[in-house]
Amino acid sequence: MSGTDDGRMTALIAKLDAVLGPGGLLTARSDTDAYCTDWRNLSPGRTPAVLRPADTDAVAACVRLCVEAGVPLVPQGGNTSMVVGATPDNSDGEVVLSLSRLNRIRSLDPLDMTLAIEAGVTLKAAQDAAAAADCLLPLSISSEGSAQIGGVLATNAGGNNTIRYGNARELVLGVEAVLPDGSVFNGLRRLRKDNTGYALRQLLVGSEGTLGIITAAVLQLSPRPRQLEVALCAVETPEAALELFGRFRREDPTAVQAFEFMSGTGLDLVLALIPGATLPLEQRAPHYVLVELASGRRDGTLRGLLEDVLGAALEDGTVGDAVIAESEAQRQSLWRLREEHSEAQKRAGASVKNDVSVPVSRVPELIRLATGACETLIPGIRPAPFGHLGDGNIHFNLVQPPGMDPAAFLARDHEIMDTVGAVVRALDGSFSAEHGVGRLKPYMMPDWRGGAELAAMRRIKQAFDPRNLFNPGRVLPAEDMPAGP
Amino acid sequence: MSGTDDGRMTALIAKLDAVLGPGGLLTARSDTDAYCTDWRNLSPGRTPAVLRPADTDAVAACVRLCVEAGVPLVPQGGNTSMVVGATPDNSDGEVVLSLSRLNRIRSLDPLDMTLAIEAGVTLKAAQDAAAAADCLLPLSISSEGSAQIGGVLATNAGGNNTIRYGNARELVLGVEAVLPDGSVFNGLRRLRKDNTGYALRQLLVGSEGTLGIITAAVLQLSPRPRQLEVALCAVETPEAALELFGRFRREDPTAVQAFEFMSGTGLDLVLALIPGATLPLEQRAPHYVLVELASGRRDGTLRGLLEDVLGAALEDGTVGDAVIAESEAQRQSLWRLREEHSEAQKRAGASVKNDVSVPVSRVPELIRLATGACETLIPGIRPAPFGHLGDGNIHFNLVQPPGMDPAAFLARDHEIMDTVGAVVRALDGSFSAEHGVGRLKPYMMPDWRGGAELAAMRRIKQAFDPRNLFNPGRVLPAEDMPAGP
Repeated sequence: MSGTDDGRMTALIAKLDAVLGPGGLLTARSDTDAYCTDWRNLSPGRTPAVLRPADTDAVAACVRLCVEAGVPLVPQGGNTSMVVGATPDNSDGEVVLSLSRLNRIRSLDPLDMTLAIEAGVTLKAAQDAAAAADCLLPLSISSEGSAQIGGVLATNAGGNNTIRYGNARELVLGVEAVLPDGSVFNGLRRLRKDNTGYALRQLLVGSEGTLGIITAAVLQLSPRPRQLEVALCAVETPEAALELFGRFRREDPTAVQAFEFMSGTGLDLVLALIPGATLPLEQRAPHYVLVELASGRRDGTLRGLLEDVLGAALEDGTVGDAVIAESEAQRQSLWRLREEHSEAQKRAGASVKNDVSVPVSRVPELIRLATGACETLIPGIRPAPFGHLGDGNIHFNLVQPPGMDPAAFLARDHEIMDTVGAVVRALDGSFSAEHGVGRLKPYMMPDWRGGAELAAMRRIKQAFDPRNLFNPGRVLPAEDMPAGP
Repeated sequence: MSGTDDGRMTALIAKLDAVLGPGGLLTARSDTDAYCTDWRNLSPGRTPAVLRPADTDAVAACVRLCVEAGVPLVPQGGNTSMVVGATPDNSDGEVVLSLSRLNRIRSLDPLDMTLAIEAGVTLKAAQDAAAAADCLLPLSISSEGSAQIGGVLATNAGGNNTIRYGNARELVLGVEAVLPDGSVFNGLRRLRKDNTGYALRQLLVGSEGTLGIITAAVLQLSPRPRQLEVALCAVETPEAALELFGRFRREDPTAVQAFEFMSGTGLDLVLALIPGATLPLEQRAPHYVLVELASGRRDGTLRGLLEDVLGAALEDGTVGDAVIAESEAQRQSLWRLREEHSEAQKRAGASVKNDVSVPVSRVPELIRLATGACETLIPGIRPAPFGHLGDGNIHFNLVQPPGMDPAAFLARDHEIMDTVGAVVRALDGSFSAEHGVGRLKPYMMPDWRGGAELAAMRRIKQAFDPRNLFNPGRVLPAEDMPAGP
């Protein structure tokens, strides 16, 4: 169906309007445009209608009507995808299904430490609900103020604290979802052990809306840490950063809540371009590590652990200099040096982002090899890798050479991504650690996940969504979808 | 195909023999019988052949030959299934594929703390390999001496330490598997973050050999704990046991490595029937808890944590009495009281086992309600629930009344299971927490996991194994397999 097939679409919209009631349907371009523009503004689209159902039954009713009419659906939460996963293409034939009105917290059980919550609740609101019960929802990502639980799960979001608590997938005990046949999977269980058939929950999480639309979930909460310690460390080499990580992990693996790597180039950009950002060390260094330790205990021993490890590392030269936050304000200002990396890179001109992962032990090689390869490709390019060293997940971003025309730099984005990709590939890594595939990266799937793996994914897609109407063209490349095995 | 279809089977066996080479094929009844008898001896079967391939390519070759001939395959590891998941039926038409010769440790990376290992390595051998590198493979189950990694993953094994480390599924970074079309899924990645398509690994784990045959895996290891503390506590009520769990978790959630509940009835059987078992408390109690704390740190503070929580609980009456192990020998003797539960129940006569789970907060209700319901059903019956309270997973076993004819008791096993099941169901629980579904419990699936959930599982099975030749009749009930969505 295309946007010009007006009669059929008009009839569908009339039926959807009747199901959704007042405020449930948006069709005016002025209302729908915000739903059609992806967060990075990489690929603006168009839609004939935005559906805003208020509960799971209404989602199912919308799905049945759209599938009956053969109209593709694009589920959308907070619209914060980095890979154009949640906005319609520009055919004007894809309907947007917004989950934002499913925004109720259904229940919180402080004994189980479980939170049952609808898809449209923002991650921040979910964190706040957990905190009000003296619990922690450990998932934390920079878009948490807008990102909604449905999208967070559909993309298996990661973030800073996965090293201690796992990715979104590890935090989900139960899922409720509307499947492409309009049926509702009532999997809102809150069991820590349940071996009764296939892991549908795990399959839906990370499937980016291509197999089902998550309408609610049960999340596992944790007790809130009672001690937090944060330190910024200067290191000469990526190898020293890895060595420091190994020492903390050997000393107490449960204590490491974040272990973030930052290149000197990246931190220099933050210091130069973010007002108020200052380096609390005597001199600049080739690389930095931000380490955060946490403990649920009240015994005040966490600082000792931090000081012991850092003291030994300073003494033997693994760490050149280090500073420990002495207050919440200092803690936040250290974290700000890490969190402003994206903003600083934006201000420095054009940049190309790579959200890649490798085995933890190979992060130093990744940094060395990809830096060298990109500098050879475009002399003067500024590699500014940063991110979750403890998870092997580095945001290998590259900032344009000073003075280069941004458009000329961006014209080479695929060359740059392929250059980083070749290094990642050689190190047995992944081209998308956290952000998913969306509509931006399905073309990479045959090369990276081809053979039996992609074939199995296609069979699953075909089994769930034989007419290819749930987020088509996302995750799996569109062409050659086989009819079956 | 049936066992009488000799020509076709004979031709297949000749081809398999050529592929497998010397020692790779067993056909004599005296050789195959051990592969046909399930561990609990619930359902002895027969097979025309046991295939013993030595590597992944040979597994794939066997699969292609069997599928071409339309002959069903039953993958088998250590043959320790509790639910008849790994042995052939008695049709003499199912071929057994043993993974036991795929028994190499492929690599261990102490920096990544990852272990790449083949399916036929026993869990114990895998634990030993990890320990030799000063790492911990935290998965621990009572059958670990025989159970093999392939089966451990295919059934998403749990065990005592899941509260701290998760189930098998949470410990697997990568999987290699032969799919029903004979292709090999090369998913042996060792990445902590990888959002590139559907979670095939998570789907294969727990699918009990019905979607693919796991041939190798990458497991996440942990540092070995440097402190361990174990205590046995007497409690008046299941509610007190739950309260104690909550206190430990609030104090330090990462420290609780095991939190095991035992009924007074069950422990009395151990004390009466297991030579050398003694109760290191002054008097018997209605219920007991065995708690094990662990820490990676060397700071000697774990004992203080244990004493603080127990001291307060003794003072306010939550715990009636408690003993802390003062040596490794004492630690083992406390654990023995828990581990001998199954053996003691065996010696006490016939018993019916229920491996069930409920939300953690509802364990006390489970124990009270199911105890009462079973005592009403069969006066004199001895409910002896025990297990992983911290995971909401209780082995709700019932021992026959003293003096009753064991056969008469076992004749009522379905009544008993249904009685427990009704309570579990009302508490939003699961009929199989750890042991899986196998061939023993598929009949429960329509009732417990019916509707959209079972329909989706059937579609997945159909997509992977359209001819239903991988472990047919296991997990999913055999009848009414639809042709497609």
